[in-house]
Amino acid sequence: MNDPIITLTTDFGAADEYVGVLKGVLLTGLGNANIIDITHTIPPQDVFHACRILAGSAPYFPPASVHLAIVDPGVGSRRRILALRSAGQTFVGPDNGIFTPFLNLDSTIVYHVTNERLFRSPVSPTFHGRDIMAPVAARLAGGMDIAETGRPVPRESCVRLSENEPYQSGGRLVGSVLAKDNFGNLRTNLPEQRVKDFGGGGTVTFQIGTLVIDNLNSVYADRQRGELIALTDSQGFIEIAVVGGDAALVTGIGIGDEVIVSRQCR
Amino acid sequence: MNDPIITLTTDFGAADEYVGVLKGVLLTGLGNANIIDITHTIPPQDVFHACRILAGSAPYFPPASVHLAIVDPGVGSRRRILALRSAGQTFVGPDNGIFTPFLNLDSTIVYHVTNERLFRSPVSPTFHGRDIMAPVAARLAGGMDIAETGRPVPRESCVRLSENEPYQSGGRLVGSVLAKDNFGNLRTNLPEQRVKDFGGGGTVTFQIGTLVIDNLNSVYADRQRGELIALTDSQGFIEIAVVGGDAALVTGIGIGDEVIVSRQCR
Amino acid sequence: MNDPIITLTTDFGAADEYVGVLKGVLLTGLGNANIIDITHTIPPQDVFHACRILAGSAPYFPPASVHLAIVDPGVGSRRRILALRSAGQTFVGPDNGIFTPFLNLDSTIVYHVTNERLFRSPVSPTFHGRDIMAPVAARLAGGMDIAETGRPVPRESCVRLSENEPYQSGGRLVGSVLAKDNFGNLRTNLPEQRVKDFGGGGTVTFQIGTLVIDNLNSVYADRQRGELIALTDSQGFIEIAVVGGDAALVTGIGIGDEVIVSRQCR
Repeated sequence: MNDPIITLTTDFGAADEYVGVLKGVLLTGLGNANIIDITHTIPPQDVFHACRILAGSAPYFPPASVHLAIVDPGVGSRRRILALRSAGQTFVGPDNGIFTPFLNLDSTIVYHVTNERLFRSPVSPTFHGRDIMAPVAARLAGGMDIAETGRPVPRESCVRLSENEPYQSGGRLVGSVLAKDNFGNLRTNLPEQRVKDFGGGGTVTFQIGTLVIDNLNSVYADRQRGELIALTDSQGFIEIAVVGGDAALVTGIGIGDEVIVSRQCR
Repeated sequence: MNDPIITLTTDFGAADEYVGVLKGVLLTGLGNANIIDITHTIPPQDVFHACRILAGSAPYFPPASVHLAIVDPGVGSRRRILALRSAGQTFVGPDNGIFTPFLNLDSTIVYHVTNERLFRSPVSPTFHGRDIMAPVAARLAGGMDIAETGRPVPRESCVRLSENEPYQSGGRLVGSVLAKDNFGNLRTNLPEQRVKDFGGGGTVTFQIGTLVIDNLNSVYADRQRGELIALTDSQGFIEIAVVGGDAALVTGIGIGDEVIVSRQCR
Repeated sequence: MNDPIITLTTDFGAADEYVGVLKGVLLTGLGNANIIDITHTIPPQDVFHACRILAGSAPYFPPASVHLAIVDPGVGSRRRILALRSAGQTFVGPDNGIFTPFLNLDSTIVYHVTNERLFRSPVSPTFHGRDIMAPVAARLAGGMDIAETGRPVPRESCVRLSENEPYQSGGRLVGSVLAKDNFGNLRTNLPEQRVKDFGGGGTVTFQIGTLVIDNLNSVYADRQRGELIALTDSQGFIEIAVVGGDAALVTGIGIGDEVIVSRQCR
């Protein structure tokens, strides 16, 4: 039988003992496990960023995977700890919006984790990842029924991050920059399909501040090195990039900046 | 049978080939293994920091785990290489203090690794991690008796870092900041229990430079965002934090700064 | 049976979803796998650096390992994707020179990956790592014959990085700095043996800019803390180091700087 797969998405950084502690607790709980680092460098307490990374990664994992997501600024407060089952996968983490896209699916079921017999004892008020979430994740990865974790709660009772959706205004489609990646590419909330529908088969332009990009490219290699382009990223959203360069650095465009899509005059 | 678990704690960083080399040697030695990164971003040659991370992580791992700890400024000198057995776990690394807390336990046994038949050949004078420690760790993880590694040596003969212990002076308890974590929390050498005993059931204050914190909190969520607090960290020591913020950045407090605990007048 | 071993060498960084996506696709393809991070912090699009790290790590892994190397500035252009078999190991990545040292071996066989039935569908024009390379690597790790990936191509048809070789000129041997490592050690393209042959049993000096090092040391511990030395690194090349310090920082020597070896007058 395969070792269970448990992924980790945290803001613990690489230089402290927290990541090692978490892995130790998981391995102790399971005997063995295939522990997969998604990332430990979520900016501290940035639930929104963690939500994006997890939403972008989890669907590519096998169905039985358990995803442990610990970005938990509310540790020690009354915020709940959740266990979710969504599309055959299992998620464990705080009720702070980190699971928003999964909570938006009708088929997702949610438990409030309250079964103290599963916890390490005593529970530290500052590290529920170690004392509650990791032991519960280990048990779930080992095959425990999710109903053992506590009591079912309605999806609607859980914290969800407000979606940052593009909107139409005055004949323009207005989106925004959600993130910049390791290459300096600027990732937006504009779905390619929505931009194409908006464009109606014609050419569209993208305006960010004073910069204008005059069409949607399909690959980096379409244009000259150093040129600013808009193209579709690997998740199906519009991305602003500089061919062979770092768009964030070159343009000064940052997270939250508006991206205005217009139909080109013909 | 489970794959053996081998953890890695190094100062190799993430950008060179050294981590890959180490993992390759371990996998070649064992056929397969569950290699767990604790961290590779110990500040270069910072044995004290590595010692803290390993001491904080190792106890959470299953008994049969092998911990390979390579922060080795003395590589190529006459410093010894050690193999330890402590609380059922195995440790391999240089004799430079990195194993201090384990060497302080009566039940720990120590071998000086001298059995050249276990080494890669030739041994590079600059990378004993690859040529001595990893092959020895792989053999130990595979079940080899620790007595095969060399000859037993007294714990007392091994390098130990001097403990940075709090002390009482003039009716005050004086500790210091040992580290700052990824969140900017300042971690001290003051055990919660010692502070509570010192306080005798009354209220204590913490003074660091000109800053005063007027009590021990139990969780981050006790206070307002931005407030400076003292609380108990997940290892049972006092930690200085800013609620929802970065205490190191906000206060300028750094490693080595004194933390003075006083009983509050009643 | 052991889980297949797949190593990852990428420039994806640690903060995006790309690493998680890659691991998810591999695990989905294989059920399980021992996924080994060599590094994800290759400087963005630095094929030369990736080539060095992979060449330095891969030979230490067991024969059946699959190495997935994704530094791919040409993604979406007409650059080919390759699968190599070299010394019993398998490599998958873009045809951009990242596999240069393996392509230089007569016994290496190379396939141009063209079998679309192995790909994810649709193939994103910006993330061939996810849609082509990872699924192909998973199949190869699972035992698929490399001939299934596409059609064999001559090694000579593949992109190779020009070797930066030392040369002799005016009675001197001239090399250069290839990289600096996490410790600030400066790694050169000068093989120890070539320097020794050049020296003919006598003493050699190393000159970098205005700095002169008056002999080849064998270990860091030969000299005083803070002293600038030349010694042989763990790959058999000359390295410039500062004992207990950071040579790059202290000297200002950088990548590309010339290292001139001279025979000392006797």
